[in-house]
Amino acid sequence: MTKKRIVFGAMLHGVGTGWDNWKHPQAVADAGTSLPFYVKQIQKAEAAKFDFAFVADSVYITPKSTPHYLNRFEPLSLLGALAAVSSKIGLVGTFTVAYNQPFSIARQLQSLDHISSGRAGWNVVTSFLEGTASNYSSDGHYAHDVRYRLADEFLDVTKGLWDSWDDDAFIRDKEKGIFYDPEKLHLLHHKGEFFSVKGPLNIARGPQGHPVIFQAGMSEDGKEFAAKHAEAIFCGAESIAASKQYYDDVKARAAKYGRSPDEIFILPGISPIIGDTAEEAEAKYQERLSLITIENALTALGRPFDYYDFTKHDLDAPFPDLGNTGIESMQSAVTKITKFAKENNLTLRQVALGLASPRGAFIGTPERVADLIQEWVEAGAADGFILSPENLPTAIEDFTEKVIPILQERGLARIEYEHDTLRGHLGLTKPASRYTKEAALSIREKKGS
Amino acid sequence: MTKKRIVFGAMLHGVGTGWDNWKHPQAVADAGTSLPFYVKQIQKAEAAKFDFAFVADSVYITPKSTPHYLNRFEPLSLLGALAAVSSKIGLVGTFTVAYNQPFSIARQLQSLDHISSGRAGWNVVTSFLEGTASNYSSDGHYAHDVRYRLADEFLDVTKGLWDSWDDDAFIRDKEKGIFYDPEKLHLLHHKGEFFSVKGPLNIARGPQGHPVIFQAGMSEDGKEFAAKHAEAIFCGAESIAASKQYYDDVKARAAKYGRSPDEIFILPGISPIIGDTAEEAEAKYQERLSLITIENALTALGRPFDYYDFTKHDLDAPFPDLGNTGIESMQSAVTKITKFAKENNLTLRQVALGLASPRGAFIGTPERVADLIQEWVEAGAADGFILSPENLPTAIEDFTEKVIPILQERGLARIEYEHDTLRGHLGLTKPASRYTKEAALSIREKKGS
Repeated sequence: MTKKRIVFGAMLHGVGTGWDNWKHPQAVADAGTSLPFYVKQIQKAEAAKFDFAFVADSVYITPKSTPHYLNRFEPLSLLGALAAVSSKIGLVGTFTVAYNQPFSIARQLQSLDHISSGRAGWNVVTSFLEGTASNYSSDGHYAHDVRYRLADEFLDVTKGLWDSWDDDAFIRDKEKGIFYDPEKLHLLHHKGEFFSVKGPLNIARGPQGHPVIFQAGMSEDGKEFAAKHAEAIFCGAESIAASKQYYDDVKARAAKYGRSPDEIFILPGISPIIGDTAEEAEAKYQERLSLITIENALTALGRPFDYYDFTKHDLDAPFPDLGNTGIESMQSAVTKITKFAKENNLTLRQVALGLASPRGAFIGTPERVADLIQEWVEAGAADGFILSPENLPTAIEDFTEKVIPILQERGLARIEYEHDTLRGHLGLTKPASRYTKEAALSIREKKGS
Repeated sequence: MTKKRIVFGAMLHGVGTGWDNWKHPQAVADAGTSLPFYVKQIQKAEAAKFDFAFVADSVYITPKSTPHYLNRFEPLSLLGALAAVSSKIGLVGTFTVAYNQPFSIARQLQSLDHISSGRAGWNVVTSFLEGTASNYSSDGHYAHDVRYRLADEFLDVTKGLWDSWDDDAFIRDKEKGIFYDPEKLHLLHHKGEFFSVKGPLNIARGPQGHPVIFQAGMSEDGKEFAAKHAEAIFCGAESIAASKQYYDDVKARAAKYGRSPDEIFILPGISPIIGDTAEEAEAKYQERLSLITIENALTALGRPFDYYDFTKHDLDAPFPDLGNTGIESMQSAVTKITKFAKENNLTLRQVALGLASPRGAFIGTPERVADLIQEWVEAGAADGFILSPENLPTAIEDFTEKVIPILQERGLARIEYEHDTLRGHLGLTKPASRYTKEAALSIREKKGS
């Protein structure tokens, strides 16, 4: 049996996530809008033959948002620049379907696919923050189920626009004066609940046909959407058991949509802390922990609870039960935090500090982290991982230079790129155009009749 | 008296404009989505110390659109990539305010300004094609005057978002744990006719404060908008007299908006045809003319006439007077064509072919073209030019390698970059934040009282 190669993505942050990571002595505090910083990060990931780099996003901040949300690049402009300074690694950007138009997104992603010679990916998000509406001239935000219905139609339209031109539509015969074959151009004429789009898209089908679809939904609607559309899923990495349950759940839903479970990659996000010894790794974690202030920890804790002000409670009394105070989309987090606090008899201070700097499972020597990674994949809890290193100059190197070689040695990580596109790296086939499929179907029907 | 330096921009096309230029033996017919082609073009323009590169755009095509509209990069992703392979030249992208949101555009342009270290420009367009609505889930397109009212509010909101953070808002004091100064963060709370936007923008003020505003409107509304907002204007180059009239008209309107005429650069678009001798230049023009088919010329002619089908008319009969058949925004073009045909007793064939390959004023030896350029600027008909070379591998070089050195010799073109930003190249100051201005005003008022 050939060993299954593990997929690796690198989440490119400016400043690290959380309220306090930017205060680390090694942290690059202005990394959020530093192109040289991002260039170094992606080049390290490419040198380690990662499948892709991943850029997160959000479109609503408040004065209380975490530093890494406050000031950062817009993903498309950033990925355009990164495409020009890399050659093989996939380029995945987060773009919301809320307050956006499929024509714009379809174009932007297809353009990125051409610019990068087939390395574009789209992390589809629906923007759960209620405040988002206030930046986009909307009276109120979409309800959760509406957002997923909208996302489904958005994806359908986007994919339709990506098929506007057959792969071989542009003939460019100078002698005959034929620029394109009109038979190979398709107008979409979509009219749906949320969108009406005539088409065609004003850019050729890209090297990948369709950029690779990423997604991160954990709710019921989110999992159905993932099973129907996603080719890679970014999820939590709480424990092997929890990840395995999610993994099996989503993959089991794929068949309903005529898809193979192998076409969907489940990729927990991890932030490994690596030391040459277990003690060194632990010391690194403790150093991060020491940066956290209780004020910031309380603000962070308040977020899923609809920005609840926890400062009015006694820090050392048992964690207060607020009932279901949270934002709709954060409900599962709220329930989980409250349940965990009660079961373990934790105080407010303990809950806040614990959440502000989660210890994570992936901490230890390079050998230990490599073992854990292998264990997760062999247990069927992951097809790979999205590495979310803090923005310390050494965080990504610790992994790419110390852990990756061990996994390469074991035949679990890529030694050289064998393909030029993100689909190639993942072993995903180029999607056939919906019009080619229609034609094939119509021929079969004719033959059958 | 120091001579006035002439501003130069390079319009980066994929395939050339028009229906037939792509058929030229030297034309790169797949340039529309070829990053290497664009990289070469911008690097040539930067080597010649041009002020900026310019990327045009449109968001609606039909099967009858010209080849250069059918398949081309989306501007933001392209300019992101070009930022990474250039270091001094300005990067101007065309983005429409129709069916778009100020929050998105403000972010994208500010991000490009950070990525390029202060080289971003925005060519504001309102998308005159009626069909645009059909790609953006809209029942009908905005009327001309509504589009300009919308554009005005759009610009006001965008500029407000660009001022969300004062230039020195991000302190990043690790010791004190202060990431930013809350006094230097401003929420917009805009509520207007078309948009309501709370803010703040999730990216710091860029090196230029506000990216440079370009515009190209020729109508009354367009000229008012230009006088109020534009810092550079892309216009036609029919004749010195016509350009001078436009130049004086727009500059005279500036004072009304508290602006100096020197803050607005008028830049006619030209497509020089250069030969080592006058005969060679003429032969190059004739070669381009020979590519044109009457079928394509008639299609091109039909466009301003609301896609009117001219094939039903006799090609060699006098040009038919159709009255005001045209698209609203094309009305001035329709009137001009009809008037010109009547005055010169032209046939349909003559009008169609003449329009399909305009001879242009800038044709001849490098010396001759340099003389013409100097003449236009000295006559007060232009502050510079946007060069729109056809996509022949040699078209941009002919100008940068042969004409620019002559203008440099005469002290009219830049020999070295003296600044790092587009504002720097143009001698435009960085706009003060609206909140800084408010504060200054409030201090003056207090002192006065």
